[in-house]
Amino acid sequence: MSTNGARLALETAHAAGVDTCFANPGTTEMDWVIALEEIHGIRSVLCLFEGVATGAADAYGRMTGRPALTLLHLGPGFANGIANLHNARRAGSPIVNLIGDHASWHLAADAPLTSDIESLASPVSQWIARPDGPRELAEAMAQAVAAASGSPSGVASLIVPQDAAWAEADLDLPDPVKAARTVADPERVEAAAQCLAQGGPGVGLLLGGVLQRESLEAAARIRQKTGCRVWLDTFLPRLREGRGLPAFDPLPYFPEQAMESLAGLENMVLAGTRAPVAFFGYQSLGSGELLPDGCEALPLADPYTDSGPGLIALAAALEAPPWSPAGSGPLPPVSDGPLDAANMGLTVAHWLPDEAIVVNEAATSGLGWGIHGRGAAPHDTLSLTGGAIGQGIPNAVGAAIACPDKPVVLLQADGSGMYTLQGLWTLAREALNVTVIVCANRAYRILQAELQRSGQTQPGPVALGLTDLSGPNLDWVRLAEGMGVPGCRVERSEELARALEQRSETPGPYLIEALL
Amino acid sequence: MSTNGARLALETAHAAGVDTCFANPGTTEMDWVIALEEIHGIRSVLCLFEGVATGAADAYGRMTGRPALTLLHLGPGFANGIANLHNARRAGSPIVNLIGDHASWHLAADAPLTSDIESLASPVSQWIARPDGPRELAEAMAQAVAAASGSPSGVASLIVPQDAAWAEADLDLPDPVKAARTVADPERVEAAAQCLAQGGPGVGLLLGGVLQRESLEAAARIRQKTGCRVWLDTFLPRLREGRGLPAFDPLPYFPEQAMESLAGLENMVLAGTRAPVAFFGYQSLGSGELLPDGCEALPLADPYTDSGPGLIALAAALEAPPWSPAGSGPLPPVSDGPLDAANMGLTVAHWLPDEAIVVNEAATSGLGWGIHGRGAAPHDTLSLTGGAIGQGIPNAVGAAIACPDKPVVLLQADGSGMYTLQGLWTLAREALNVTVIVCANRAYRILQAELQRSGQTQPGPVALGLTDLSGPNLDWVRLAEGMGVPGCRVERSEELARALEQRSETPGPYLIEALL
Repeated sequence: MSTNGARLALETAHAAGVDTCFANPGTTEMDWVIALEEIHGIRSVLCLFEGVATGAADAYGRMTGRPALTLLHLGPGFANGIANLHNARRAGSPIVNLIGDHASWHLAADAPLTSDIESLASPVSQWIARPDGPRELAEAMAQAVAAASGSPSGVASLIVPQDAAWAEADLDLPDPVKAARTVADPERVEAAAQCLAQGGPGVGLLLGGVLQRESLEAAARIRQKTGCRVWLDTFLPRLREGRGLPAFDPLPYFPEQAMESLAGLENMVLAGTRAPVAFFGYQSLGSGELLPDGCEALPLADPYTDSGPGLIALAAALEAPPWSPAGSGPLPPVSDGPLDAANMGLTVAHWLPDEAIVVNEAATSGLGWGIHGRGAAPHDTLSLTGGAIGQGIPNAVGAAIACPDKPVVLLQADGSGMYTLQGLWTLAREALNVTVIVCANRAYRILQAELQRSGQTQPGPVALGLTDLSGPNLDWVRLAEGMGVPGCRVERSEELARALEQRSETPGPYLIEALL
Repeated sequence: MSTNGARLALETAHAAGVDTCFANPGTTEMDWVIALEEIHGIRSVLCLFEGVATGAADAYGRMTGRPALTLLHLGPGFANGIANLHNARRAGSPIVNLIGDHASWHLAADAPLTSDIESLASPVSQWIARPDGPRELAEAMAQAVAAASGSPSGVASLIVPQDAAWAEADLDLPDPVKAARTVADPERVEAAAQCLAQGGPGVGLLLGGVLQRESLEAAARIRQKTGCRVWLDTFLPRLREGRGLPAFDPLPYFPEQAMESLAGLENMVLAGTRAPVAFFGYQSLGSGELLPDGCEALPLADPYTDSGPGLIALAAALEAPPWSPAGSGPLPPVSDGPLDAANMGLTVAHWLPDEAIVVNEAATSGLGWGIHGRGAAPHDTLSLTGGAIGQGIPNAVGAAIACPDKPVVLLQADGSGMYTLQGLWTLAREALNVTVIVCANRAYRILQAELQRSGQTQPGPVALGLTDLSGPNLDWVRLAEGMGVPGCRVERSEELARALEQRSETPGPYLIEALL
């Protein structure tokens, strides 16, 4: 049939299950814009900054297991999306980036927007291609979708010369490409079973990746059967948690606390993750490896693969009985009073609607939620996986587009929220059911903590100036209103509770600036 | 003397003339924050997004010819600054990026924030180093400053393992490194003189790079003497213009118009630039080269070098008499009425204070300024050199920090303004004398023009949705107020004129949303 490269590629993507494109197009992407109009079945969502598009695609991938497309403008447009693609890479999120480049014959002119896109894309992509014609473009799209949603899952980047997109062609859709699925590895299961069967606190299990109920129940059965210790990765792409669900503690963020928690461990089974390492290197610490000396790590399921099949097989190999939920007590009541990280998290936990998606980029303000989230209504939590701040608002966009029936609640630190605040506009334009809670401590608090850790107990004016966000204070209610999102400011826990209740009665996005 | 790597490197930079650091630090940069406190003479300016820091450093370099430092957090933090570094590369702006990386021994742990920083940095850097100890760090800093401010000038990137920054050392400052200076090349001058001496409209002169009065007067003398045609690059890093100054037309943006303008040319002398190319490739056009077939290009001064010495030598070789200013007529009066691109530019031209810096990211709304700017009071204009939108607000920050005695006026398109709006906060924090005029046409108008050019005269809802910024409208006054910048909205030329007059009476930044 007569078509062109862009149309054929989008129809190929749609046939492979793609239904969403987070877009910030430029001149070299106009053929894609026109093709999105002409084909059916792919919803396009405009983002006013590329980091919003990539962060939205990240959350979309975490929630659906399928890639969304991003549509990005040459090297500089792609570069604006790298930070959230870095997080997506560390989450193993399926994403297919469509990066428009100049027409192939125009590259030699070294026009102003020309740059080395491959060099920019390779640090965050597990798969890259530059197809040079419409047939190659469609075939590359089929491969890209499979590569992104395979095992391991991750980021695929298609760099598309404009002439490959606009070229007229008389072609049928290419053959579908099957994505690899994760299966349990019998040898690894057997080795892990032998290790865990020793039982007791010398053996451990570390859970990473997307953790749905099946993985968690299998881990809980293994723990019940063997008495092993179980930890979650400190930052998880997606975690099912809440009342009636198995709950495990995450590894602490600071390495000293993590090492203390892991003390005495002799064997650690790794499910969907790697042996734990410190987030940063410190002068006082060694290599950054957190497992005790001599502790052996046993891989069960590789990073960025589904830990479910391996964990279920492991529970079966251990003949672990079905999981019996341990009755977790009710949440403690919230006292009225000035907001802090503890009562903010508890207030949110009390209010949380059923089957919400909680996007957590609260940073140091997330303490209370970390304690009380497991006592809230069942929900999924998405966390900051790669440390590249500015994930929260974009993730909220993508989660809400991916799951229109679920309410989304974003716990957003103020410093990191500023990186990608443009996403608030997309929340308004798409009328997404997202409650944004900005945790406004008006500082890069984690950096102030790091200054303390390095012995700077009395930071001077320069260090304060570089870690403090006051002078002037950000007014998040005005920022939100400037992008069409209504909001309010609260300073006390009872005001937050009331704002959340009232907010539930209105459709669309709403922002609450919570002064801490 | 006893010091550490960070302190020694900053003192080295200061000794080489560096006095400003645009910073967005993270944990791996805490040693630099502490060192900025301890040494004297380098002002640190906090930016709430890395693209603000790099765009500020770009303008700082354009205005001073000296590099500012940026302080950026690992690969993802650096990545957020790439788009404006791309513009800086295309401007030849001196910048030294300080990119903190993990401690060297921590890289093997592949911690969450680890990535291939060299791969990210190389597309925008003309010089990169990764020093591995405090001595090497200080020496690399001396080389980086020289590389950035040399000839050609450009972006130097220092990737600094945290242990090189924190290591205690007993070292003196390294030897200074002399930056290369641009000198006239006698052979090129002679060849260009012979060519231009033919005279008439078959010979041309194209001016690029930073254009100060000396370069422009020399070009005007050459034109007066030879009758050659003279063009400016379409987008210049810095252009001196205004009443009493030589004025030349820029090459038109769209390639058809540029080729029409260049028709009949047989020889083109290139001063601080390359042979002109189309911004984008189009199906209807050939290679993207804009010079007529057979037209010979003669380099006089290389891109990213100062065209002044070559042009002055060329004028002397041609025995061109001193420049006699042609009396340009007064600006036409502005009629009251609804704002459009034409009367907006004219209104600003009438009001412009003496010796202002005009940052121009007005895109399609810059039409009137393009016509009338040369009739305004003498000023310098900074334009979007690399096509990576989001340069305007950061440039305004950097220009105002570089030149505290000059008023800065930013003509900012609304679509591109959203990319780096976080810079408004730094305007407020530093109380910078910047007038921001947001040209609010509520669309990516250039993309709508490109759709028209590609035959989409009636864009459908998808194409409209991806190129339109309404639904909801952005409220720039609220956005500015949310970051501590006061502002107002105007819809008519007389309202704009009044707002500009009133604004001149108040110190600090002010934003005017001009509805077009």
